[in-house]
Parts: sequence; structure tokens; C-alpha cells
Amino acid sequence: MKIVIVGGVAGGASAAARLRRLCESCEIILIERGVEPSFANCGLPYYVGGEIESRDRLLVAPVERLRQRYRLDVRVRSEVRSIDRANKTVTVANLATDEVYEETYDKLILATGAAPFRPPIPGIDREEVFELRGLDDADILHAQATSQAKSAAIIGGGFIGIEVAENLVRRGIEVTVIELADQILTPWDPEMVRPLQQQLLAHGIKLLLEESAEAFTDRGERPGMRIQLQSGRSVDADFAVVCIGVRPESQLAVDAGLECGSRGGIVTNAHQQTSDPDIYAVGDVVEVTDFVTGKPTQVPLAGPANRQGRIAADHLLGRDARYRGTQGTSVVGFFGQTAAMTGQNEKMLRRQQTRFEKIYIHPTDHAGYYPGAEQFTLKLLFDPDSGHILGAQAVGTSGVDKRIDVIAMAIQANLSVFDLEEAELCYAPQYGHAKDPVNMAGFVAAGVIRGDQPVIHAESIDPSTAVEDFILDVRSRQEHEAGHLAGATNIPIEELRDRLSELPRDRRIIAYCQVGQRGYMATRLLLQDGFEAVNLSGGYRSWCQMRCHDGNC
Amino acid sequence: MKIVIVGGVAGGASAAARLRRLCESCEIILIERGVEPSFANCGLPYYVGGEIESRDRLLVAPVERLRQRYRLDVRVRSEVRSIDRANKTVTVANLATDEVYEETYDKLILATGAAPFRPPIPGIDREEVFELRGLDDADILHAQATSQAKSAAIIGGGFIGIEVAENLVRRGIEVTVIELADQILTPWDPEMVRPLQQQLLAHGIKLLLEESAEAFTDRGERPGMRIQLQSGRSVDADFAVVCIGVRPESQLAVDAGLECGSRGGIVTNAHQQTSDPDIYAVGDVVEVTDFVTGKPTQVPLAGPANRQGRIAADHLLGRDARYRGTQGTSVVGFFGQTAAMTGQNEKMLRRQQTRFEKIYIHPTDHAGYYPGAEQFTLKLLFDPDSGHILGAQAVGTSGVDKRIDVIAMAIQANLSVFDLEEAELCYAPQYGHAKDPVNMAGFVAAGVIRGDQPVIHAESIDPSTAVEDFILDVRSRQEHEAGHLAGATNIPIEELRDRLSELPRDRRIIAYCQVGQRGYMATRLLLQDGFEAVNLSGGYRSWCQMRCHDGNC
Ligand SMILES: Cc1cc2nc3c(=O)[nH]c(=O)nc-3n(C[C@H](O)[C@H](O)[C@H](O)COP(=O)(O)OP(=O)(O)OC[C@H]3O[C@@H](n4cnc5c(N)ncnc54)[C@H](O)[C@@H]3O)c2cc1C
Ligand SMILES: Cc1cc2nc3c(=O)[nH]c(=O)nc-3n(C[C@H](O)[C@H](O)[C@H](O)COP(=O)(O)OP(=O)(O)OC[C@H]3O[C@@H](n4cnc5c(N)ncnc54)[C@H](O)[C@@H]3O)c2cc1C
Ligand SMILES: CC(C)(COP(=O)(O)OP(=O)(O)OC[C@H]1O[C@@H](n2cnc3c(N)ncnc32)[C@H](O)[C@@H]1OP(=O)(O)O)[C@@H](O)C(=O)NCCC(=O)NCCS
Ligand SMILES: CC(C)(COP(=O)(O)OP(=O)(O)OC[C@H]1O[C@@H](n2cnc3c(N)ncnc32)[C@H](O)[C@@H]1OP(=O)(O)O)[C@@H](O)C(=O)NCCC(=O)NCCS
Repeated sequence: MKIVIVGGVAGGASAAARLRRLCESCEIILIERGVEPSFANCGLPYYVGGEIESRDRLLVAPVERLRQRYRLDVRVRSEVRSIDRANKTVTVANLATDEVYEETYDKLILATGAAPFRPPIPGIDREEVFELRGLDDADILHAQATSQAKSAAIIGGGFIGIEVAENLVRRGIEVTVIELADQILTPWDPEMVRPLQQQLLAHGIKLLLEESAEAFTDRGERPGMRIQLQSGRSVDADFAVVCIGVRPESQLAVDAGLECGSRGGIVTNAHQQTSDPDIYAVGDVVEVTDFVTGKPTQVPLAGPANRQGRIAADHLLGRDARYRGTQGTSVVGFFGQTAAMTGQNEKMLRRQQTRFEKIYIHPTDHAGYYPGAEQFTLKLLFDPDSGHILGAQAVGTSGVDKRIDVIAMAIQANLSVFDLEEAELCYAPQYGHAKDPVNMAGFVAAGVIRGDQPVIHAESIDPSTAVEDFILDVRSRQEHEAGHLAGATNIPIEELRDRLSELPRDRRIIAYCQVGQRGYMATRLLLQDGFEAVNLSGGYRSWCQMRCHDGNC
Repeated sequence: MKIVIVGGVAGGASAAARLRRLCESCEIILIERGVEPSFANCGLPYYVGGEIESRDRLLVAPVERLRQRYRLDVRVRSEVRSIDRANKTVTVANLATDEVYEETYDKLILATGAAPFRPPIPGIDREEVFELRGLDDADILHAQATSQAKSAAIIGGGFIGIEVAENLVRRGIEVTVIELADQILTPWDPEMVRPLQQQLLAHGIKLLLEESAEAFTDRGERPGMRIQLQSGRSVDADFAVVCIGVRPESQLAVDAGLECGSRGGIVTNAHQQTSDPDIYAVGDVVEVTDFVTGKPTQVPLAGPANRQGRIAADHLLGRDARYRGTQGTSVVGFFGQTAAMTGQNEKMLRRQQTRFEKIYIHPTDHAGYYPGAEQFTLKLLFDPDSGHILGAQAVGTSGVDKRIDVIAMAIQANLSVFDLEEAELCYAPQYGHAKDPVNMAGFVAAGVIRGDQPVIHAESIDPSTAVEDFILDVRSRQEHEAGHLAGATNIPIEELRDRLSELPRDRRIIAYCQVGQRGYMATRLLLQDGFEAVNLSGGYRSWCQMRCHDGNC
């Protein structure tokens, strides 16, 4: 069997390696446009910033190893230009020699990835406007980062944009991030990333949200450029990096008449087969099924690409391997902060008009009594009837990726918040809690579903309507004085039982504390005494994350 | 409703807190023998060692808070001496006043925990022989650790013993650990903890395995004592700490005629109800069902105690809460090392004659190309037919607890190694791998089940039978020269395809490399060429962990 693979990095090289392991006799041709196959895309920003010192480290499986160990016919600097499905051939251009030739295939795997999106903005083709996808891009940015350049603008605050921003700061460059949305890292919800935005500012990054680049122009006599923004403002920078997302590189497939989705991704079945059963497609170039919603989507991540490559290889060789859909589980770290997530976010659920409930907790990564415990925020989204887990997000410095991975596993197993209550996770004081944050999120969510803990969310509280609702701060006097919701009455939880007569019986009481736990206790107490009460989920801390930016805090 | 709870720490205090949240009108009496309820048992060793500086930090919920916030009737220094089931009363002794009184109950919860086992060894009652369970013990050990004492013997190398050992070393004390088994930390398998034993030695701890204390005697004129060992050897020490496991404190239950198991634990149903439906029992004092085997066992851990307390409270108040059984998920850390586990270990599976297979991998905690990646060892135990996960163990410095927690969640969801293959975990180079170690363990295990990767284990290879089997080292020449299996022939994987003629077709070939991956590739290649081949799981690294101590390395 002769197999041609187009694209030789995450999905393509994984498919090739797996094919070889399963089939010694197969002829496997790996065609890659770039100079190197199998490099660490995800490491590129850290090479630019110097955290990864040696460029060689980025070559995960160098050409020679792929040739020797896997006996692959690796052709770099080679581009597939078209597919002739009827004759089962591809046209290949050798970019070094300009030679163009045909190659036959029995099976074809498309693993062409996704290309950075470059919107048609005037001046975007200036030589100081870069992007970061391949090793060549990294080389260029590395040179910029270690040049005389003093300032850079990052267009787009997605995870690649922020990683590049951090790494340029590490090089001593002044960085401005320009983001169209009202938040960075849009796979997370805005209130979750707000503390991260503060971190960017704290590290000297200028963050321009709800702003977009309109034009890249000269800036008078000086080299570098001026970026005109839609708002009328402008940003001067020695160079710019465009990181506003990627688009599936599916033109080959389109031209060959393969079915593609509305966002350009190649449509495949669970075996990664395209509409032509002899052609498979994997990685960033394919449309995937969202594991939670069952709907088609595009999720450009390395894990799915790697696993899809393996699945395509299996199926191509006659095995019954199936991809289960993508949860979007991801993580990004910068300036000591970590944000991780899995499943649907709240914005997506709202857009799809899915019924959901959510809770926030602010646990520490490990037992508070053991030194070094760090608080993080965990948001859990779930079906308000069945408790089915829809998604989770966490942000903090430590223990964040662990909890999201555990919940990601739970989502894959179709578990509910009631299962999180019973999760048995490992505990010693340096590592977690006897009631782990994952359990705690389960407890709170299950309590909401059971009606033990009716919750309200910061965005639904209008401090000006404190006339309708009675806002009850059950924290200590000191905590209250240090900052509270407008119109709140302070009765510390310890005094509440004795001061119930001070509370109205004809108005809803919104109880809150610092993180939600005492507010929950207050709510329990009030409900059992016949009051109408709800708890502000995540307490004052969530309130601040959600509302402080609009001055309501 | 009047509820009496005996034991006011992990299980008892959790039950009390949950009861109060669900029932404002209940009368809840929490009876605790010690000076403080609700303290951090698990933090005690770190207070002794000074890592936790302030004793107050150990008081998780001080008496006053339990009284005020939870309106509990907390009675410390009070011991329940007997239960009169017919009259629904308990006899309570006030240890401060010696007053003894009766207390009635509607429902009783026993959360008396487990007491350190003190075998009847001559001299064990000497004043320099301590144990560590309560705050008072911690106070005494803290005083010892900060006294003139220069040497200590720890009897028992379980997790408490090792934590105490580490903390005494931190105080500059010379420590000898005496352990009856041939390994420390018996919930793990011996080959997994061998590197940890090396760490103890590296930190100056004397480790005496397969040794037991026969008598504690004077050591001539000098204060302190001599510990006579069964082997005839002896150890001198200023003081000793007995940490050889715990026994359920179930005498109250026994005396009251409640059903107890063969190991002394109180038998309960899934609602934590004892054989008397008005009496619940939770925590270390109960027998639990092993989640994996379905058989009764004793697992003294804080997470289960806390959750059982909550479940008992729920059921007692009419809710349908059920405990699912204990997986034994646990973690211990010392000298920068972490060991974590969940489910059954190999020793238990063998003892129960359960069919199982196992694999070892030695991945890094995060992508090797990103600085700071640290190798750890992961062992996965699974059903060789269905792939059902039976247990997992991991040992290393970083990323260990995360992977075990993910697999613990998978076990709870009854997943198989085929599900681990498809786990979608978060990835960025600082945090993991595009193919996470959890996926990798799934790949390898699934490959074994599918027959793609027949494996052999170090303990089954007898180097003297290299005549029967052909041992093939597919590592590089340098790696081979630095140490290899006796009788092994070295053909680097890159040359293997061209040198197949050097291999025997009438003997089984045992391929191996450093960690198992190249050995796997060699195995694939050989099998497809008609050879009989197996891969040494975990490679030379596992070989060393398993065999080096017996000089076969
Ligand atoms: C800077 C950066 C950081 C990232 N960080 C992370 C991260 O932390 N975590 C994470 O999960 N993901 C991360 N990603 C995303 C991840 O790298 C991709 O999801 C993954 O590489 C996709 O794999 P793929 O095989 O589909 O595409 P790629 O790995 O991009 O490989 C596609 C290859 O196909 C080649 N190609 C395209 N068309 C042709 C053609 N016609 N002929 C020949 N060759 C062709 C391209 O040159 C390219 O090398 C990052 C990506 C970038 C760029
Ligand atoms: C030093 C140490 C370190 C540990 N580290 C960890 C760890 O890292 N991770 C982990 O998961 N687990 C750890 N554990 C185990 C964990 O603490 C226990 O599993 C857990 O506390 C059990 O909870 P429990 O409520 O059953 O018993 P306990 O928490 O022990 O509480 C029982 C209480 O009942 C009281 N009592 C007993 N009989 C009577 C009576 N007749 N009348 C009145 N009171 C009575 C006792 O005084 C005791 O305070 C550790 C334990 C110790 C001692
Ligand atoms: C490097 C690359 C070619 C490797 O592909 P691969 O061989 O499929 O993947 P790995 O090297 O992780 O090896 C996995 C295989 O080794 C086996 N393996 C791993 N450890 C093993 C061990 N200790 N013992 C036995 N087998 C082992 C696994 O079972 C798996 O084989 P299988 O798929 O046949 O079951 C490919 O992943 C790649 O190009 N990566 C770089 C690009 C990229 O991923 N970018 C995005 C992230 S930066
Ligand atoms: C301190 C102690 C009394 C606490 O018991 P507890 O109140 O049940 O447990 P926690 O303080 O963790 O709180 C959990 C409760 O708060 C709720 N909660 C936690 N965070 C919340 C938040 N942000 N918003 C709303 N509710 C929250 C949970 O839902 C749960 O309530 P529920 O059980 O009614 O669902 C008890 O655990 C104890 O004594 N621990 C020390 C002893 C010990 O555990 N030793 C072994 C380990 S060292």
C-alpha cells in the first residue's frame, strides 16, 4: 500500500509514525512544505523569548530520525498543489528546485493544518508585520526580538498572541496587545480572564480591548510603523505580529471537491475519512464534532491533531478506530499564571440557547494550613436538571491544569456534578484537599440542583435595585469595610441567627460573603427560617472579577 | 431530632457541619476525646518538622467557630464509653472533671477513627516511644524534635512513618527507619518505591527493610534506648516513633453488638448505616468496599472519611446518598519526590489471583523541549481482556498527582485503557504533552491487549536463560555500553531493518531500549517479519528499578 501524507507536523507525522508501526511494508511518503517536519509548533513562542534556548530542541523528530527509525520517505520544502481523485495522484512542487511532479497514492492523508488569518487590512503586507506558525516565522521573530526593536504590537489576544506578548516582554520589548473582543483568550469567559488581563498590565503590556487595526502605515520619518485603530487611536511599533486566529488550510480539499464545513474545515466521519473514502484528513484542517454539543466546530489544538493522525492510520489499515469529538481542553500559561478549560464556555452555551447553570468557587490549590497554598478560581457549567457537566474553566497560579484535566476526563465519561461529589482524588496537604476543589465544585453544583443552595450571579444583581432585593453581607466587619456591594447590610454569619429580626420577610435576600461558602451557610439558615434567599455564587471575589471593571465595585 | 456524633475530626466534624447546613432545628452534639476537634491530622508531621510553623494553623475549624457558625454542641475532652442501643443513650466521660453522664440520641454517628497499632513488644511502653495521631502526640514530637535529641528510630515505613522521618531529618535528627516488609510504602509495589528508598538513603536516613523491632531496652548508661531487631542487629536512638499502621477504634461498636468485619472495621451499608439503622459510622473506623474488587477492606484516608461523613448526614436526614466504595487514591511527598496511586496494586491482584496485565512508562511531566521537564514512572494495571483499569501508580518529582487523579476519575467512571487513549487533556509545553502520559499509558496498554505490543516484565527475564531467549538491546552503542542486560546483543533501532539476518528465527527475541518505546518499535518490526518478539515493558529503566537491587544489573 502506498500512502501519501500532506503536511508533516503534528497530525501528519503522528499518522506516519503510527502507519509505520502497524505496517512495515507500506510505502509512506510525508510531504512537508516547510524546511523541517515534526517540529514543536507549541514551543515557538518560547524560542522567540529565549526560554527555549536552542532551536534544535524544537525539532521533535528530525528528518533523519523519521527516515531511519520510521523509514519514511520524507520530502521537505515540497508542496502538494492539487489532488486528482480520479487518477489517485497528487501534484507536488519541490520548492528547492521548482520541479513539479505527480505522485500516485492508494490512500491520501491531508494534515495541512491551519494558517494564520490575515485580514485584508491596508498595509498588512508591510515587511514589519509578522505571524507565527512555522519555524521560519519563529526564526524571523527571534531575530526581531533580539534586534534593536523596542516596541511591538500584537494583533489579537488569543493564546498565541498572549504567549508571544509574554515572550517579547521577556526580551525587554514594549508590547501592546490589540484585541477586537472585550477580553483576551476568548475560549474562556470574560470574568475568568479579567485577573489575567491585570497581570498583563502589571507586566507593562498595554492592552487595548474592543479595538481593531484598520491600517498599518508609516510613522513619519522613523522606521517601524503606526497602526491606525478603528477607534481613531493609533499605536506606534517597531514591528507587529498578527495572531487573530487561524483558518483551515483546506484549499486543496476544496479544489478536489471534498466536502468542507461552513468554517472551511474538511468534513470527516469518525474515522477521519473525508467524503472520498481513500482520503483522510486530520488536525487543524478538519471540522470536528464538539463533544459536548455534538455540533460541528473548528478547534485547532495539538492533542486532537495527534490523536486524529493515529486514528486515521488505524482505520486506513483496517482497524475500527473512532474519534470521539473534541472537548476543547486547553491550557495557557504566562507570567506565572495558568488558565485552563474544557468543554463549552458560557458564551457558547448562551449563543446556542442551551439551558445551563454555573457556579464559581475560589479554593486553594492545596490545604490552606500547609505553606504556599494559592487561591484559584474554578467555574463549572452544567445542565441544571441532569447535572451533566458542560464545561469548566480555571484560572490561577497552581493546581489549575490538574483540576481541569480531571474534569475533562469526567466529561469524556459523560459524568455529572453528582459524580464529581464522589470523586476520590489523592490528598496530602502539599497536593490538595480532603475535599478536593473538584469535589467542592461538585458539592456546590449539586447543591444548586437540589435546591439547597439557590444561587444568583454577579451579572444579575443590579445594585441600584437594592430596594427590591435585600443585599446581605455575612462577612466580618473588617471584610465589609474593605469593600462591599452598594446597599449591602453587614451581619457577620456568626451573628445571623440572633439577628434574623433585622431582615425583611417580604423581599428576597441576596446573601454573600468573600468566596461563597459563608453566603451558602447564610442561605441555608435563611431558607430554613422561611426567608426567600439566594447566595451570590463565588461571593465578593466573583463579584469583583465580574463587575469591578464597570465601576460597580 | 437529636444527633450525637462520637469523634470530632475528619468524618465527625464533616458530618456535623453538613447536618447543620441541612437542618437548623437539629440538636447536634459533637463529642471529642481530644483537646481540639477538627484539626489537620495530615498536617501533624509538618508541624513536627517546622514546615508548618504555627500550631494554630492546624486547627482547621476551632471550637468557637464550630459553636458559632454551626451552632454545634461541641464537647471536647469528652469520651463516649458505651452505647445503650435499647435506650438510645451513650455514656460520656468528661475527662476534665471525671464526671460521667448519659446522653440520649435519636441518631448516633460513630466517627472514632483508627488508633496507631502498638504491638505487644517488650519495652514499647517506655517513655521515649511515641506515636503520631493527635495534636497531643504532635506536641510531644515537636518538643522532641526541637530538643537535644540527636537520633530517632521510626518503626514502620508507611506514609506516616516516612513523613515523620523526613520531618525529623529537617530538624537535623539522625533517623533510622525499620520496616518489616521488603519495601517502604506498601500500598505501592516494590519496584515503584525503590527510587524513593534511594532518596531516603541520599538524605542520610538509615533504612532497615525486612527488619522488625523485638524489644526496646536501655542502652547502657546513656539516656535513650536500644531497639533490638529480629535479625539480631540493634539500633540506638534517643526516641522512637511507632508508625506501623492503624486499627479501627471500634471497641464501642463491638461492645454494643454492632457488626464488625474481620479487620475490626464497623460494617455499614452504602448509606453508612451500621447494623443498627439508627447508628451510622464513617471514616477510619469503618470497613469499606474496595471500588475495584468489590471486596471489604480498610482504607484510612481523609477524603473518604470526609465524604462518608457528608453521606451519613444526608441519609440520616432522609436523602438517598450512597458511598461508592474506596479506590485507595493517595499521595505522599518527601524530599521533593511524589508517589501517588489509585486502585489495586499488583501485590493485591496477585494475592487475589485476579487476571491482570501491567505496563510501565517513563514519560516527562511536560514536553521535553521545554526547560525543566522531569521524568517520572507510571505503572498501569488493567484487565488483559476488557482493558478495564484496575489501578495505577506513579512516582517522580512533578506531574505525578495530576496523572493519578485523572486515572482515579477514569476508574470511578469504570473506563478502560481504550478510553485513556482518547482522553483529551490540556496541553501546552509547560504542562504536558500533546500525547499526555495518560494517553501514552492508554496507547501502550491497548497495544498490549490488541497484540501489537506483546510485553515481558523484568521479573520474568532470567538473564541466565539468555540461551533460550535472544536479548536484543536496540539502544545506541553508548547507551548499551553504559549498562545493559547480561547477554544482550546491541543493534540500534536505526540499523535493525538492515541487520535482521543477525537474529535467530527459532528463539524468542526480547527487545528492549531505555524506556520501552524503541523496544516497541523493534517488536513491531520483528513481529511483522515473522520473528517471535516481545518488548521489555518500561525498558532498561524499569529493569533497573525492578532488578538492580539484587545485583542483576
Ligand atoms: C505558535 C503556536 C503555539 C501553539 N501552542 C499550542 C499549545 O500550547 N497547545 C496546543 O494544543 N496547540 C498549540 N498550537 C496548535 C498546534 O500546534 C496545532 O493544533 C497542531 O500543530 C495542528 O496540527 P496539524 O498537523 O493539523 O497542523 P500543523 O502542525 O500546523 O502541520 C501542518 C503542516 O502542513 C504543511 N502544509 C500545509 N499545506 C501543505 C501542502 N499543500 N503541501 C505540503 N505541506 C503542507 C504546513 O507547512 C505545516 O507544517 C500552537 C500553534 C502555534 C502556531
Ligand atoms: C500523621 C497523620 C498524617 C496523615 N496524613 C494523611 C494524608 O496525607 N492524606 C490522607 O488522606 N490521610 C491522612 N491521614 C489519615 C487521615 O487523617 C484519617 O484518615 C482521617 O482523619 C480519618 O478521619 P476519621 O474522622 O475517621 O478519624 P479521625 O480524624 O482520627 O477522628 C477520630 C476522632 O475520634 C476521637 N475519638 C475516638 N474514640 C472516641 C470516643 N470514644 N469518644 C470521643 N472521641 C473519640 C479521637 O480522639 C479522634 O480525634 C493522616 C493521619 C495521620 C495521623
Ligand atoms: C514526533 C512524532 C513524529 C511522534 O509520533 P508518534 O511516534 O506517534 O508519537 P510518540 O513519539 O509520542 O510515540 C507514541 C508511540 O510510542 C508508544 N510508546 C510510548 N512510550 C512507550 C513505552 N514506554 N513503551 C512502549 N511503547 C511506548 C506508544 O504506544 C505509541 O505507539 P502507538 O501509537 O503505536 O500505540 C509526532 O508526534 C510529531 O511530529 N510531533 C511533533 C509535532 C507536534 O505534535 N506538534 C504539536 C505539539 S508541539
Ligand atoms: C472543617 C470541617 C468541619 C469542614 O466541614 P465542611 O463544612 O463539611 O467542609 P468545608 O469547609 O470543606 O465546606 C464544604 C461545604 O461548603 C460548600 N462550599 C464550599 N465552597 C463553596 C462556595 N464557594 N460557594 C458555596 N458553597 C461552598 C460546599 O458545597 C460544602 O457544603 P455541602 O456539603 O453542604 O454541599 C471538617 O472538614 C473538618 O473538621 N476538617 C478537618 C479534619 C480533617 O478533615 N482531617 C483530615 C484532613 S487533614
